[in-house]
Amino acid sequence: MTQVTIWNEFRHERDDDDDAAAVYPDGIHETIADALGEGDREYDVHTATLDEPEHGLPAAVLEETDVLLWWGHEAHDEVSDAVVDRVQQRVLEGMGLLVLHSGHFSKPFKRLMGTTCNLQWREDGATERLWVVDPGHPIADGLDEYVELPKTEMYGEPFDVPEPDRLVFTSWFEGGEVFRSGCCYRRGNGRIFYFRPGHETYPIYEHEAVRQVLRNAVEWAMPRSEAVAGTGRTFGNRPRDSRPDRA
Amino acid sequence: MTQVTIWNEFRHERDDDDDAAAVYPDGIHETIADALGEGDREYDVHTATLDEPEHGLPAAVLEETDVLLWWGHEAHDEVSDAVVDRVQQRVLEGMGLLVLHSGHFSKPFKRLMGTTCNLQWREDGATERLWVVDPGHPIADGLDEYVELPKTEMYGEPFDVPEPDRLVFTSWFEGGEVFRSGCCYRRGNGRIFYFRPGHETYPIYEHEAVRQVLRNAVEWAMPRSEAVAGTGRTFGNRPRDSRPDRA
Amino acid sequence: MTQVTIWNEFRHERDDDDDAAAVYPDGIHETIADALGEGDREYDVHTATLDEPEHGLPAAVLEETDVLLWWGHEAHDEVSDAVVDRVQQRVLEGMGLLVLHSGHFSKPFKRLMGTTCNLQWREDGATERLWVVDPGHPIADGLDEYVELPKTEMYGEPFDVPEPDRLVFTSWFEGGEVFRSGCCYRRGNGRIFYFRPGHETYPIYEHEAVRQVLRNAVEWAMPRSEAVAGTGRTFGNRPRDSRPDRA
Amino acid sequence: MTQVTIWNEFRHERDDDDDAAAVYPDGIHETIADALGEGDREYDVHTATLDEPEHGLPAAVLEETDVLLWWGHEAHDEVSDAVVDRVQQRVLEGMGLLVLHSGHFSKPFKRLMGTTCNLQWREDGATERLWVVDPGHPIADGLDEYVELPKTEMYGEPFDVPEPDRLVFTSWFEGGEVFRSGCCYRRGNGRIFYFRPGHETYPIYEHEAVRQVLRNAVEWAMPRSEAVAGTGRTFGNRPRDSRPDRA
Repeated sequence: MTQVTIWNEFRHERDDDDDAAAVYPDGIHETIADALGEGDREYDVHTATLDEPEHGLPAAVLEETDVLLWWGHEAHDEVSDAVVDRVQQRVLEGMGLLVLHSGHFSKPFKRLMGTTCNLQWREDGATERLWVVDPGHPIADGLDEYVELPKTEMYGEPFDVPEPDRLVFTSWFEGGEVFRSGCCYRRGNGRIFYFRPGHETYPIYEHEAVRQVLRNAVEWAMPRSEAVAGTGRTFGNRPRDSRPDRA
Repeated sequence: MTQVTIWNEFRHERDDDDDAAAVYPDGIHETIADALGEGDREYDVHTATLDEPEHGLPAAVLEETDVLLWWGHEAHDEVSDAVVDRVQQRVLEGMGLLVLHSGHFSKPFKRLMGTTCNLQWREDGATERLWVVDPGHPIADGLDEYVELPKTEMYGEPFDVPEPDRLVFTSWFEGGEVFRSGCCYRRGNGRIFYFRPGHETYPIYEHEAVRQVLRNAVEWAMPRSEAVAGTGRTFGNRPRDSRPDRA
Repeated sequence: MTQVTIWNEFRHERDDDDDAAAVYPDGIHETIADALGEGDREYDVHTATLDEPEHGLPAAVLEETDVLLWWGHEAHDEVSDAVVDRVQQRVLEGMGLLVLHSGHFSKPFKRLMGTTCNLQWREDGATERLWVVDPGHPIADGLDEYVELPKTEMYGEPFDVPEPDRLVFTSWFEGGEVFRSGCCYRRGNGRIFYFRPGHETYPIYEHEAVRQVLRNAVEWAMPRSEAVAGTGRTFGNRPRDSRPDRA
Repeated sequence: MTQVTIWNEFRHERDDDDDAAAVYPDGIHETIADALGEGDREYDVHTATLDEPEHGLPAAVLEETDVLLWWGHEAHDEVSDAVVDRVQQRVLEGMGLLVLHSGHFSKPFKRLMGTTCNLQWREDGATERLWVVDPGHPIADGLDEYVELPKTEMYGEPFDVPEPDRLVFTSWFEGGEVFRSGCCYRRGNGRIFYFRPGHETYPIYEHEAVRQVLRNAVEWAMPRSEAVAGTGRTFGNRPRDSRPDRA
């Protein structure tokens, strides 16, 4: 069965002075886990959080993970480089990675993109329309032409990432901005999807269409090739060895 | 000197019952020609229109053209396939092509894209914000983070074109839509830029920032390679001939 | 069940003076049909050929086709534009298209690419090595690092196509050339794969690894989205209609 | 005047037991500097090497550099992370970066790509043919359809890098391999070109066509936008600040 690991920083929700505690009392990871459980397809879902040993991502967990989701915000710098190295290597070997909302500034995403991943923002709780710009993409399956989110934090362009392989969503914000909200990449054997919606104090992950996108994206990001199984064709663990001549 | 040819359908502006006659009394092409004349760089600018013989684009004109601009709207079907063939061939050889606004449905653009180039639209004269999503791109040179156009026709996603090589602009519309308004492509040796703003009854091509974009885009689209000079390395006129073995 | 239609020009094989008659006595399409029947997955396979009415591709057939394979060579020009229109529309709606070998010059491929699709060639029966340059791609599943084809026709760069979305194979030729032999594209909702190997007088489609690639590519090219089912979200048949304002 | 900085590890050439000392007695950087001096265009050329303070790349040098060339091989790990941070930031701001041969494993290139940048290799001094696959690209200006290098080290696929924005060269090797030898990327505002040829014991950088490519690539990689001048539109140094609402 497909192994999905949901990583969450899990700090806001444990702070009584933070509104997140009321919105996601069990943590964003548990709400996302519920969302993944609602589809036709069954997954073996784990969760992992920053304050667990090795942030809940020891090598054994990552090796068995097919798709990793990542939500972080105020403690990106506390993620150890050793864990980031491991996440990067697993993506290059073929593990899927879904990076959510403020995860744009997470170490694994910046490592894989090679850019600042900078953007503009405004926390105003105004309306967002998430437009499907690539209706044939499986991540948009089952959606209408747009999803309206009544209260969100704004993210605005320019978003300093490499040109996406495919752009699935572009957001319109009531306050006058636009944002590339659904960006697909391949790095090594792995698939990466950045998905903008999600915030610690707006219940974005309770929204039906957002939950549908998360399920679609897990399906899309799953390893597609036997290369992952360690046949020697994987990039990540191939020795840079000399090759004999064809003669 | 760089040869620029501005092609305009030039029907709306000659129809007294059309508001375009008041907005662009000499034709959209003349307004664009003025815009190109305002920059630091001097061009040899020609214009050509639908109702001239061969639509003003006989082979001799196209062969000398470095960059072609294309504005059309209500008479796309009247453009002869022979002229479309020639435009396509010249782009593949290295001529730059700027496709403007309703030119998304022109024959040359559809021919070069291979898709329907369909989109959604609403003529409501509401505000558009043209966001620069790729600030390092030369087509965005000299612009602020966005350009505000107070009255425009809305174009909305999904826009059925191949994924652009680079996306320079994304539009925000007051009515709630978004659109990929500045799309770069290469086909053969030629560079193609689709630029959304422009309409026959709103004076979009009088707007300073839009004029700047047109000048920047002409500069960007110019042939970059000697391949254009007919050295035998151009794609368009290379015979599909047998090659001798390396021995 | 997935509907696969294999289109073959089927002229060489019916000409007693052509070596193809001995290599593919039942036609290239039947050999490919056999290959598709050898995998784990079962398909409903049809064949269609140039000299059938409507080239075997009436609207009813195309509408039910999930993936279309295309092999043509000496009679590209005899394919009617009406059928090409239909193939293009179906790809944009979501049908997969696999273009094989000399099909690079077929009308549907040129239509969808927008370029000349020109290349260089030499019919010398020398060795080709088809290198996997993207080992994590599902089309390369189960292959070794390269496939060696002992006798092939050479195709050489430059190949005048748009930059592929993903490049899966690059060929090395004994005579000194290289070629991008496995090119992935998306156009509208559809997936397109150009695959170089295959020739009417070398038994390329009897080669085990080539047959594996064909099966992998059919799997990859299948429609991925409900958009295909005509929900109104498909590009191809969407009317360019006015949209109401959000208010 | 355009400022070009050529960075070289400069260890092989100073080691009497290394054949490089005879091939590049003044260092690879000096040979490349000579090459850049031979074109129509004049540059202000600096060189910098690993064993200088801050590897010859203090902030003041990088800030004035328009295009940086990078050659390294056996001492990648000795490059300090602080210098790598600075190089990355400058590329994202708009500085061009040319990565040469074994520089594929350099820290700046891996940082900007986000992948292992792994490949296969064999040091056999056999023939390489560098094919131009994108004849309209300015980096290929003035070249024939291929460049033959009689004695080179082989690099083979798979090359674990993100799909290039444009692929300019693909190499054919006598021993049976292929390689994507000229890869263009944009990251942030900067242009990056990976160019395979070059080795410490084969006089590759004495080859006329290779020298032409280096000059072409410097021209291509130059900052294209005023964004570089620190107008506040650059990605690298933009504060992630709150934005006021449009009202």
